This record gives sequence, structure tokens and C-alpha cells, in this order.
Amino acid sequence: MNDQSRASARSGGRSARRAARAAALPDHLRPIRPGLEGGALNLLSQQDMERIHSGALDALEQIGLADAPPSGIEYLVNAGCSLGEDGRIRFPRALVEDTLAKANRSVVLYSRDGKTDLDLSGTKVHYGTAGAAVSMVDVHGRNYRDSTVQDLHDAARICNHLDNIHFVQRPMVCRDIPDNREMDLNTIYACTSGTFKHIGTSFTEPSYVKPALEMLHTIAGGEDKWRERPFMSNSNCFVVPPMKFATEACEVMEECIKGGMPVLLLSAGMAGATAPSTLAGAIMQATAECLAGLVYVNAVKPGHPAIMGTWPFGLDLRTGAMTVGSGEQALLSAGCAQMHRFYDLPGGAAAGATDSKLPDMQAGWEQMCSAVMTGLSGLNMVYEAAGMHASLLGFCHESLILSDDLLGQAMRCVRGIEVSDETLALSQIAEVCLGGTGHYLGTEQTLSRMQADYVYPTLGDRTSPKEWAELDKPDLIEKAIAKKEAILAERSPARFDADLDAQLRAQFNIHLPT
Amino acid sequence: MNDQSRASARSGGRSARRAARAAALPDHLRPIRPGLEGGALNLLSQQDMERIHSGALDALEQIGLADAPPSGIEYLVNAGCSLGEDGRIRFPRALVEDTLAKANRSVVLYSRDGKTDLDLSGTKVHYGTAGAAVSMVDVHGRNYRDSTVQDLHDAARICNHLDNIHFVQRPMVCRDIPDNREMDLNTIYACTSGTFKHIGTSFTEPSYVKPALEMLHTIAGGEDKWRERPFMSNSNCFVVPPMKFATEACEVMEECIKGGMPVLLLSAGMAGATAPSTLAGAIMQATAECLAGLVYVNAVKPGHPAIMGTWPFGLDLRTGAMTVGSGEQALLSAGCAQMHRFYDLPGGAAAGATDSKLPDMQAGWEQMCSAVMTGLSGLNMVYEAAGMHASLLGFCHESLILSDDLLGQAMRCVRGIEVSDETLALSQIAEVCLGGTGHYLGTEQTLSRMQADYVYPTLGDRTSPKEWAELDKPDLIEKAIAKKEAILAERSPARFDADLDAQLRAQFNIHLPT
Repeated sequence: MNDQSRASARSGGRSARRAARAAALPDHLRPIRPGLEGGALNLLSQQDMERIHSGALDALEQIGLADAPPSGIEYLVNAGCSLGEDGRIRFPRALVEDTLAKANRSVVLYSRDGKTDLDLSGTKVHYGTAGAAVSMVDVHGRNYRDSTVQDLHDAARICNHLDNIHFVQRPMVCRDIPDNREMDLNTIYACTSGTFKHIGTSFTEPSYVKPALEMLHTIAGGEDKWRERPFMSNSNCFVVPPMKFATEACEVMEECIKGGMPVLLLSAGMAGATAPSTLAGAIMQATAECLAGLVYVNAVKPGHPAIMGTWPFGLDLRTGAMTVGSGEQALLSAGCAQMHRFYDLPGGAAAGATDSKLPDMQAGWEQMCSAVMTGLSGLNMVYEAAGMHASLLGFCHESLILSDDLLGQAMRCVRGIEVSDETLALSQIAEVCLGGTGHYLGTEQTLSRMQADYVYPTLGDRTSPKEWAELDKPDLIEKAIAKKEAILAERSPARFDADLDAQLRAQFNIHLPT
Repeated sequence: MNDQSRASARSGGRSARRAARAAALPDHLRPIRPGLEGGALNLLSQQDMERIHSGALDALEQIGLADAPPSGIEYLVNAGCSLGEDGRIRFPRALVEDTLAKANRSVVLYSRDGKTDLDLSGTKVHYGTAGAAVSMVDVHGRNYRDSTVQDLHDAARICNHLDNIHFVQRPMVCRDIPDNREMDLNTIYACTSGTFKHIGTSFTEPSYVKPALEMLHTIAGGEDKWRERPFMSNSNCFVVPPMKFATEACEVMEECIKGGMPVLLLSAGMAGATAPSTLAGAIMQATAECLAGLVYVNAVKPGHPAIMGTWPFGLDLRTGAMTVGSGEQALLSAGCAQMHRFYDLPGGAAAGATDSKLPDMQAGWEQMCSAVMTGLSGLNMVYEAAGMHASLLGFCHESLILSDDLLGQAMRCVRGIEVSDETLALSQIAEVCLGGTGHYLGTEQTLSRMQADYVYPTLGDRTSPKEWAELDKPDLIEKAIAKKEAILAERSPARFDADLDAQLRAQFNIHLPT
């Protein structure tokens, strides 16, 4: 095709179609929605998964996990585990199988306003932020600087605007708050006052859970309301791979369980360092560790909502440095998603992060690779899916904004291809070809599909080179900066009303200005 | 993890590992190679594919194709088709099924030097260039300018350097050669003298095939040598969707078949304009059209090597403009790949192109999305997979160079996850955890996997923010420009020797300087 045929295709009825697009569709007619079902990608065969499962059971039975806290030892031994002379807790196969049979499969992660609750059943896919970046990416200055509580709050506010960011697990640490207790509590405040969407965070020490729950009760309007719809989950690094419990994190977990907070059982091994260098081995070890966590959770409280957080990361074996943007990373996380489906358990993994320092072409390809593959694998919770740079060390608001476009296209892929008499469209083909107009542009079927089937970018550019030049060659990053500024210029709709805010500020040392 | 733990992980044995990497692996031990087998992605169920197949047969039987040239009508009617009063050729089901049973399934696309032949059987995946861009992207000037024969030659030279570009179908037209015959012949010269890899091109008129074959015979050292290992295929837009033969292109095709040149049966409908707006409908129509082409090829010469070129493109229905970077595009091309597998026929589709004007983050995410999904679907020939911008209107050398990294990671994903006792590594886990070092970094298994399992980027950045700052914050595009200049500063190893070159220049008006 040449320039001329394109130009004429572009001009026909263009303004009319643009106008028709102006009115947004109701939610149920939108081409993409949170919780679309994945599962078309199957990197592992049934036999592969059975071998990984069986190997994980062997590892739990023969190797077990060290370093459980005294309380954990008690829970686990009471549940049927054995405590070896070497201090390791070992898990009988029957106990693990039993836990798998009884574990909670209907986990819902609640939003604060009830509008964006996440149902983690089956292969329903959700994308969101997560991480513990220590830096903010200053795109204009090509610079990394310490991340602050304001940055975190701004990230939450931006996420609240973006349809394709479904949850807001804290993606960065507030380095301007040196006291860990204050940092943990301000993290909750900064996220919750920025977005209605489900949030997640972690705790530095077990004793911080109690005041955090007090804050959450106050925000919810009482402990009963919080327990009815807990809008925050605990991202819990309960293991130090390989095969050791993280003693303090386990104590945090126990507190969170008691407080009614869903738990993400996060095993973040690094393939080649703290997990085997082989993809299958890293997946198997993470599976074993998360199964241990699942037994632990169910020993504390049967049926407590828990998410299998198999998060093995890649390593650049040349340098020993972590790498998250590789094909190996996409395979690790997509393979883990398949193991969650094998168990029919709610699961999450890390995907969509990049090693690049800036939102450049590398960032785009790395983010899409793992984001679309985990979605196609039916991963319930795709963590770290937006804004994460520098192998998880940096967070970028502009990149977060662009992720909304990127993840929208990934979700369109997750939705897949519907085959029916209507979509096969044989009669339409006959009509168009035999005596019809010879093209489909004006058919009723085409117009009716325009909004329901196709995902249009918000900032992504689809102009012709000529149009692009006429528009003064808009730059993707500049557009993202402008959108960020527009979002942050508005008052956050998720902000607490004045009374509640005053109450929180009386109870806690809140760092964000009113 | 924090900066400190990363820093210590980075320092240990780093130079030693870097040194170990210095020696490249022999081909058979490399983590990725041309022809890795895909197939883990199945967007269509078996029933879906049977419905598409059956609908395509219905379309061929009931609607048929208009506008076959007289020669084609003769071939097709002799083969068993009927010519209707409406001038349309209709295809009995039995004839199509018969052709499917007998078609050539062992197509090899030859390289000029025998080192990079492509075997298109099964789900073997290959990535390469293609297209008919009319502009070159000048990255520094953010500008689009007319593409020239020198640009094309330079693209071929760059491709010859890049491991993950497996074939070089002509991606742009030489707009500095106004005479079409000279343009077609110089296109062959520019590609062939730039790379040893398999090349592809198309012809404006049937009469240009004869001199082209003369050129190819001269290059090969005789017609018999050419016919033994044809190193060029004909990308042939034999249909004008919906369901019309492209009369002249069909005549070109007949000439190419007689000349022993493999044919890519290219159906480039646009979903919503020249194909149904539904993904399933667009795939079905393209399938029907390519099956018609397959019958045609086999009517001219049974068993002639042909590639199912179902290339449906997406459309931005708001504007009527073509779009190639969307999730819908990835689904269209990956769905087509599955239909090729359904037929066990060699197949190709377009994936890896972007709508973005520049090699920016959007370009990265769009290119990866369709490139990795088609690879995972086992597409034999991923056309337009590198360097294509502006919805196919622009070609970019820098982007082509970066594609080598991008496609390397996509290929790693295609290779997938190997599950075996060795990769599950249970005994290694036991050894490391029970009295071992507690980490895998120095194990024999990790070191042995370092080169054979992991794909390392060439230009992609994996440094820490600190290292990146110390390196003066290298820019991805600047690195690509530097690599381009280094490649083009060398003499092309694929250039013809002086005698052959003189012979070609005596026979043809070659525009490239000696």
C-alpha cells in the first residue's frame, strides 16, 4: 500500500467516527475490563506441572524450611509438621495435599469504595504496581533521586486515574521518613488517601501491624467494617530463599492474619543466586516455599485469604546483578502462573518491570514481554507491572502513565479471539463481496464493533508521518509529563474528608501536608 | 532488597564471570537459534480452528474470488474450479482438501552462502524484515525522508550482522529510482550484495521477473545453481481483499513459479475495511484467500514451495487508519499462526511493527507484543519484525539494530522452560540448603548454565543506577547509532567479487556505487 491509498482511507467519514467515539461505553460493553480470563499460554505440559508439584513436595518433606519463629514452629508442629534436630520444619506430603484441598479459593481483594474489587478466582487477570524502589526517576533530568512519601502519594493518585492499573501495592519506599514505624504508617496513609483501589504494603516489624490496623479501622469506620471489606493486603516476604523462613516477616504475617488482612505469600528467590539457575528449578523452589507458607497461613487460621506469591527473579549471571526485563523473567513468572492454575489457587508474580533506567524503547519491550505473557498465562495478580525501572530500584510516574496504554493492549491480548457465527461473519463476507460495496468500513457489524472490540491508546501515537509533522511531532514522554501534571493538579477524589483526616492526624504523625 | 545488598551481590567474582563470558559458544550450545519451536500459545481451540477452516471452505465454494487473469482461470478451471457467470472462480471443497493433502510441507528458504538456510517445517520460528516503507526515519532529526536504494542496501548490511534477524525481505522501496523496472532490479542487487541471508522482494509487473531471474542466475553462477538453492522468494500480494485476485500479481506469481522462486502468498486485508472487523472473520477471510492461492500455486506446479501469508492488519476504526501495533494485531497474527499449524503448512504473518514514529517506549511495547506472541504461537516466518515504524510507512536502521536485542529475548521466550530431573535440580537444592553454602552462585550447575540458558542483551542496559551514572548515562538510541556507524564503516562481506560485480553492472543499470 502506498501513501495515497492510506490518505484516502484516512479521510473517509473520519470526523463522524471520531464523534461516535466520544461517548464512553458502559463497563460491561468495554473491550477490556479487570479480571479478563487468561490461560491461552501453556509453557508447561501437564506432566511438567506434576513433576514440579512432586518435586516441591519432596523438597518440603526432605529439606524443609529453617528459621521459623517460635510461634510458627508451634503452629506448624501442631498442624502435623516435624521439627528436625537441624531446626528445620519438614512438611509431610499429606499435610500439604490436605492444605491444598482446603485452602481459600474465593479470595476477593476489596477496594475502598466497592467499585474496583478484584476477584482472584480461576484465571482472572489483574495488573498493578508493587515493589520497594528506593529512587524516583526524574525523566527530564535523566536522574535518580530518593523517593519520598509525596512521590508515593502521587503514584497512588495517578493509579486512581488509570483504568488498566487494577491495584496499588506500594511500589516505593518513603526515604524521607527515617523512622521505620512512621514510614510504614505513612505508606498506608499516602496510598489510601490517593486511591480507592485495593492497596498493599509490607511491615518492617511485627509491632507495627497493630497501629496500622488502628489506622485502617479508623479509615474504614470501625473494625467490623474493615474486617468485612479489608481494602489492604500484606505483601509478606515470609521466606529468605532458599528454603528458610524470614523469622520477623512470619511474625508480621501472624499479626496480619489475626487482623483480617489478606496475605501475599511472597517468595522472591533469584535464579542462580538464591534459587537454582534453571527456570524449572527456580519455579519448583518458589512453589515449595509458597506451599510452606500456605500451610503456615492455614495453620494460623484455616481459610484465611492468601495469595501464592511465587516471584522468582532472573539474574544476569555475567555480573551477578538482578535482572527483571529478560525473556527468562517472562518465562519464570508465566510458568509460575501455570502452577497457580495447576493448584487452582489465587496467585501473583512479578512482571512488567524493566532493567532500563528510563522509559525508552528497551523499557517498552521488556515491560510488554513479561506483562503480556503472564496475562496470557492467566496470572491473577501481575505485580510490579507499571512504572518499575532499573531492575526494581527506580519508580517513574511518566512510565506508570504510559503503562496504562501498554497494559490496555496486553489486556486486549488476554481477552483473545472470540469465534462464533457472528464473528466468523461468513454472511457479511458474502454480502460485501457479492454485489455489495466491496468493503466493510460502513457495515453495521463494523460500526457496532468499533468500541466493544478495539482498544484505543490514550497517549500512544497512531498518526501518519504527515499528521505527526503537522502536530509538531509530539513526544511520548512529554505527553506523559503533561498528563501527570494534569492529574496532580486536580484534588484527589480519594482524599479523606476533613473530620476523618483530622482524626487520623491526631492519632498518627502524618507527613503529607493537608 | 536495597542498594547495599545489590552492591555486594554485584561485586563477587564479577570480573571472573565477565571473563568466562568472553568466549562465544558454538552454535549448537547457544541459548537461542533460528528455528526454535513455538506452539505454547493457543488462542484458538481445536473447535475454533475447525470452524474457521469450514467457514473458509464455505467462502471459497460459495463466494469464490473475482479477477483472476486469463492464465489463472485456465489453471484453476483445469484443476477443478468453476468459473461463474459473475466472473468469480469458485473452489470445490474436495479440491481444496486435496491441495491441502498434497501441498509442499518441506519448504526450505535458502541463504546465499548455505549458513543460514531456514527450515519452515512444524512450528519453527524465524524473525526478519519485510514491508514496503516509503520513508526512512532520521532519528537524530526526528524526521521522515524518502527511502533510497542506499538505505535498503545499508539495511541488508546491518541485518547480515544481527544474529536474531533471520531473513531480509525488502522492507522499503527505493524512491530515488523512478523507473519501476530499475527499482525492482536494484532492489535485488541492494539486498543480495548486503547480506548472505535469504532475501525476499516483490515485482511491479510480470515482465520484470525475467530480467530478475537473469540477475539471480548470474549471481548464483548459473540457472541450475539458482534452481538448486533459490536464495530469494517472491512476496506476492496475489489478492486484493476481500476475495479478489490481484490480476497482475497473479501473473507475476506464475512467472516466479516457473522460475523456481518460492512464493509468499500474501493476503493483506485490513480488519474493518477490506476484511471483517472481527478478529475471527479477518482470520477466516485471510485463510480462505491463502487457500485459494495455494490451489493456484499447485495448479501451476504441484508441490511448488509456497508460504501461507495470512497477513490481516488492524485498523483504527475511529480514524480508518491502518494500525499495526495494537493488541488486536498481535491476536490476528498469532491466530493465523495457529491456522498454519492446523494445516501443518509453512506460514508467515506480520508482527513486530509499530505505529510509533520513533524508536521510543511505544515502539518497544508494540514490537514486543506481537513479536513474542507470534513466536509463542509457532509462526514460521515473522515478517516486518524489525525496524518498521509509522504503521509500515517508515523504516529505521537504529530500530532495526535494537530489534536484535528485542527479538533475542522473544526467542528466549519461544524456547520456553525445559523440565527434567537436571533442571528441577532437587538434589542441588538439598545440597545448597542442607549444610551447603546457602546459595547457588558458585555451583557447577549455575556456571554451566550461564551461557547455554541465558540470553544477554547487546545494547540493552542492565547497569545499576550508580553504574549507569558512572558511565555517563548511556542513551539507548545513541548506542544504536554508534553500532550502525561501526557496521556501515566495514566493507560488506556479502559484496560480490569484482568480476561478478562488473558482469552485473554490464547487464543492468546498477544505482549503488561500486
